[in-house]
Amino acid sequence: MASTRFDILGIGNAIVDVVARAEESFLSRHDMHKGTMALIDAATAERLYAVMPPGQESSGGSAANTCAVAAGLGARVAYLGKVADDELGSVFAHDIHAAGVHFPSAPLHGGAPTARCLILVTPDGQRTMNTFLGACVSLGEADVDPALVADAAVTYLEGYLFDPPAAQAAFYHAAAAAHAAGRQVALSLSDPFCVNRHRAAFRALVAGHVDILFANEVEVTALYEANDFAAAAEQARADVALAALTRSEAGSLILRGAETVHIAAEPAKVVDTTGAGDAYAAGFLAGLTAGRDLAACGRIASIAAAEVIGHYGARPQADLRALVAK
Amino acid sequence: MASTRFDILGIGNAIVDVVARAEESFLSRHDMHKGTMALIDAATAERLYAVMPPGQESSGGSAANTCAVAAGLGARVAYLGKVADDELGSVFAHDIHAAGVHFPSAPLHGGAPTARCLILVTPDGQRTMNTFLGACVSLGEADVDPALVADAAVTYLEGYLFDPPAAQAAFYHAAAAAHAAGRQVALSLSDPFCVNRHRAAFRALVAGHVDILFANEVEVTALYEANDFAAAAEQARADVALAALTRSEAGSLILRGAETVHIAAEPAKVVDTTGAGDAYAAGFLAGLTAGRDLAACGRIASIAAAEVIGHYGARPQADLRALVAK
Repeated sequence: MASTRFDILGIGNAIVDVVARAEESFLSRHDMHKGTMALIDAATAERLYAVMPPGQESSGGSAANTCAVAAGLGARVAYLGKVADDELGSVFAHDIHAAGVHFPSAPLHGGAPTARCLILVTPDGQRTMNTFLGACVSLGEADVDPALVADAAVTYLEGYLFDPPAAQAAFYHAAAAAHAAGRQVALSLSDPFCVNRHRAAFRALVAGHVDILFANEVEVTALYEANDFAAAAEQARADVALAALTRSEAGSLILRGAETVHIAAEPAKVVDTTGAGDAYAAGFLAGLTAGRDLAACGRIASIAAAEVIGHYGARPQADLRALVAK
Repeated sequence: MASTRFDILGIGNAIVDVVARAEESFLSRHDMHKGTMALIDAATAERLYAVMPPGQESSGGSAANTCAVAAGLGARVAYLGKVADDELGSVFAHDIHAAGVHFPSAPLHGGAPTARCLILVTPDGQRTMNTFLGACVSLGEADVDPALVADAAVTYLEGYLFDPPAAQAAFYHAAAAAHAAGRQVALSLSDPFCVNRHRAAFRALVAGHVDILFANEVEVTALYEANDFAAAAEQARADVALAALTRSEAGSLILRGAETVHIAAEPAKVVDTTGAGDAYAAGFLAGLTAGRDLAACGRIASIAAAEVIGHYGARPQADLRALVAK
């Protein structure tokens, strides 16, 4: 395989997170399911924001978080996602550039505002997300340059991208371009509710177009409507060349053909789980594209995830390369 | 004295903070003086933001931080400050409302954008600030309602408010309204560079219009151009009815007439000193307006400051009332 300009190209919903601490009672009062992501419209976003506790804004978006973490680990990374030409769009673009990620997507003019995700973090560190997709709904096939896809060893797609309707076409377009160039396609299932919304499409995508699958135990079990995690894991093993399945404090399981590698979770004080899965995928792909073995990939992934859940926000606050070296 | 609707009315520059971690070398490369605040224009703000590391946005502004902390301690608080009708202005208004602070100021339409402060936090936890005042420069006398001032036991003014030119009139207007109603005026000196920019005006203000003075040792020494802290402290004792002078890990000194109270600093792991002085003033005034003695006011102040320097950002992340009760 010819060498590429990028190790990883992420494609996803470009979102600014608004993170606030809240009690469990706030979630139940507002009909939220703890630990999951709900899509909300502009009016609901405004209503919910008005009653939310004080927040901290930072760039988010699942695949964008993965890209920022992977770049922090030394991988060469590009990202595609749609922001608007507004203040939050500038924040998103600044942060992903400053993280060292190539971000060529043009902002949307005169349409919906930059997407935002209202995140409530409960005292147990779980995050509950409410996403207003805004400008993300305009991302389509035309936003994915096949030459850029061909120039990345792995194209990484977030499952959340299935929510804005036009993005599914971008999804298949990117996968086809990657495979035509002899590259790999990675997918994160993102969220069990997202899997339930799009199960048939996901099943077809995973079986037919995905080389590397990331999922947590709830997501992979939902994808295959399996009776338990072990059964779901075996279906994933049959479907994709490589699967990395996470189980929170129980660590993760990596499957490649007949090979099975168990990775222990890094010890971590859980402050905010936002971005844990994103960081895991980043560490794994940074290791993989650097030619590391599966056990090393899993360890780097776990170290990156532990860093991110130790503070508020989904982007790293420490020097990840130094953490991994230690 | 008749009872008031509010314990504290804060007046200050309404600012959104953009906090990023940076090495010392970044500061020297960009001619910044560590630990101080510099005023920058719109073009410089854009240039600096472009080269800054990824940031986290949260509501700031010195007096606004004080108001949010005091409300978190149970004080009844109002705040006046000028934002624009843009996304960052909405963030500011949301956060101060959500902190439980009455915020009646109308946003500025069609003028400068909401003010922002680009804050670099070095590994030692020191914050270096670069403020683009934006909409704050439009705050003037007309924005200060004398009836609201009369309805607050203490009107608290930040020294930074001397930077936007029209605000000085608002400053004197507020002080006059407070004294006419038999209320008290508190002032924070904010920053040694700010003191140097406005020394003569500050000296006249402190001697003639201020009842309660907050300053750290560098600021108060700069104000009086004194040879040492002890000499400056004695001048403050002569000028104001009550002075609370902070000395970082050496604790604080409270002076009232012949009375002198030493307060030890609370033990704290320093992550980011942004807002330490603001939180100290909040705790002190919350205690004072609740009728506590000077030693108790100083302890509450130190507990609030210790909470705020233990994490990134100037607004509290813990239940301050519970911390103080413990």
